[in-house]
Amino acid sequence: MTLTDVRTEDRYRTRTPEPTGLIERVEPTVWPGADGPLDAATLAGHEARGYSQYAGLLSPNEVSAYRDELARLAADEKVKADERTIVEKESAEVRSIFEVHRISELIAELVADPRVLDRARQILGSEVYVHQSRVNYMPGFKGKGFYWHSDFETWHAEDGMPLPRAVSMSIALTDNYPFNGGLMVMPGSQRTFVPCVGETPADHYKASLKEQEIGVPSREHIAELAQTYGIDQFTGPAGSALLFDSNIMHGSGNNITPFPRSNIFVVFNSVENSLVEPYAAPSPRPDFVASRTFTPLSR
Amino acid sequence: MTLTDVRTEDRYRTRTPEPTGLIERVEPTVWPGADGPLDAATLAGHEARGYSQYAGLLSPNEVSAYRDELARLAADEKVKADERTIVEKESAEVRSIFEVHRISELIAELVADPRVLDRARQILGSEVYVHQSRVNYMPGFKGKGFYWHSDFETWHAEDGMPLPRAVSMSIALTDNYPFNGGLMVMPGSQRTFVPCVGETPADHYKASLKEQEIGVPSREHIAELAQTYGIDQFTGPAGSALLFDSNIMHGSGNNITPFPRSNIFVVFNSVENSLVEPYAAPSPRPDFVASRTFTPLSR
Repeated sequence: MTLTDVRTEDRYRTRTPEPTGLIERVEPTVWPGADGPLDAATLAGHEARGYSQYAGLLSPNEVSAYRDELARLAADEKVKADERTIVEKESAEVRSIFEVHRISELIAELVADPRVLDRARQILGSEVYVHQSRVNYMPGFKGKGFYWHSDFETWHAEDGMPLPRAVSMSIALTDNYPFNGGLMVMPGSQRTFVPCVGETPADHYKASLKEQEIGVPSREHIAELAQTYGIDQFTGPAGSALLFDSNIMHGSGNNITPFPRSNIFVVFNSVENSLVEPYAAPSPRPDFVASRTFTPLSR
Repeated sequence: MTLTDVRTEDRYRTRTPEPTGLIERVEPTVWPGADGPLDAATLAGHEARGYSQYAGLLSPNEVSAYRDELARLAADEKVKADERTIVEKESAEVRSIFEVHRISELIAELVADPRVLDRARQILGSEVYVHQSRVNYMPGFKGKGFYWHSDFETWHAEDGMPLPRAVSMSIALTDNYPFNGGLMVMPGSQRTFVPCVGETPADHYKASLKEQEIGVPSREHIAELAQTYGIDQFTGPAGSALLFDSNIMHGSGNNITPFPRSNIFVVFNSVENSLVEPYAAPSPRPDFVASRTFTPLSR
């Protein structure tokens, strides 16, 4: 390694051979530069906690239409065979469909809807593009959760996203209770980057989209963050939306209740933060997981 | 099978070769006949919902003393080697210690404490004895939950408990959040007996104490009960207690948070409901899981 090695200049070094300490984030969570529908209090809350919630973002009729669309997609044999569709190991049921805004016209419309797009632009203070989109299906009785992680850690390491200037919108199509595997976040944790130990293997995404094993924070770090920030849950009726920072520590428990969960998930990245070479992986992940088309999204 | 076959007279037939329908319970949840510390409103709530909660049943000092006692027990090599101790398959950590009121003097005292014993007597309307006691340790990060079940279904089938005239007290020694694997109950579900399909194998308890596979209600029945009764969670600070009916449908999710959970769990059975031969198992479970000493408990 030489002094000019890119990794020595990378503030957010991760996937290191040995454990390293927590790293303070320097960039803001809410970026100045773009107007939008959010008021000052909402923006201040988002800056502090790293997330904001919007009850009734979709109307009941829209929820119903999108649920039908998800059912249609999950039953479509062509979609099921598509490499962008993730199928549960044991049950052969569809768990996620990636790049879904290029598969479904209805979802493409939603991604460009001002209620969605203008919020993302305002938070990121610039034009934005879709880094990733997907729909998630978590069945009742046996829904598996996701262990704690920061999305930005993965996007930086494996996709080459330079800075945490991306925001995700999760739109619930089913009611989120505290007990059916909804998202847990550590409010404020987006201010801390948690580096992970371990080298990224080639084609890691094929396994990691089902169950993450590399890029997992240590228990010590998770305990420290939970102690500092606590845990909030995203609950609310179908149609509610959550905007959350790319670096917020989040996870979800399993779901033994009969109440399934499904949602639409869109990641917006600032056009001023477009991807470079991965910071800690042999090659970038495929486009349907991490888009390399950086054209600003417009209505 | 003849007309006098005991199973044809058993209202709560279960572990049948073919699925059978839901069975309405005839016995009350709160039995008349014994005075105690609970007022009429609390008793009415317990009758309706099948559970009642008691904040601050233990003082912070007591919580601390019992936590120390649990730590001492889990570290004791003699206890760890005892057949009454259940050890997690993968990690070799202690998950439960059964008949703990005969192992720990401190816990024996608690079981006979008026705050505990008099509540159980009052709910069951008679003298009571300890059918089962245990302490549970659910670790943070990787705590496994328990799938939906009725305790009475197991106690009837495998222990020969004639009627649902038993009540459990769970005393939290750690804070119960909505997100760290606390107990979920379906309020009112104690009025419905859910028969389970499948013959009980010999020595079933050895596997079932770790992970239940036989005696599991069908998904259709769980969905029907959840639709009818909804789901409540047992949350609250350490020292809170929950009294719940032997036939209430309950379960718990996993725990990926850093916050572990531990509790003391005591099942009281009415002396007028002492065990007979198992209703649906080749032989009774051992005494440390289902006591056959029916002497009334006294202070």
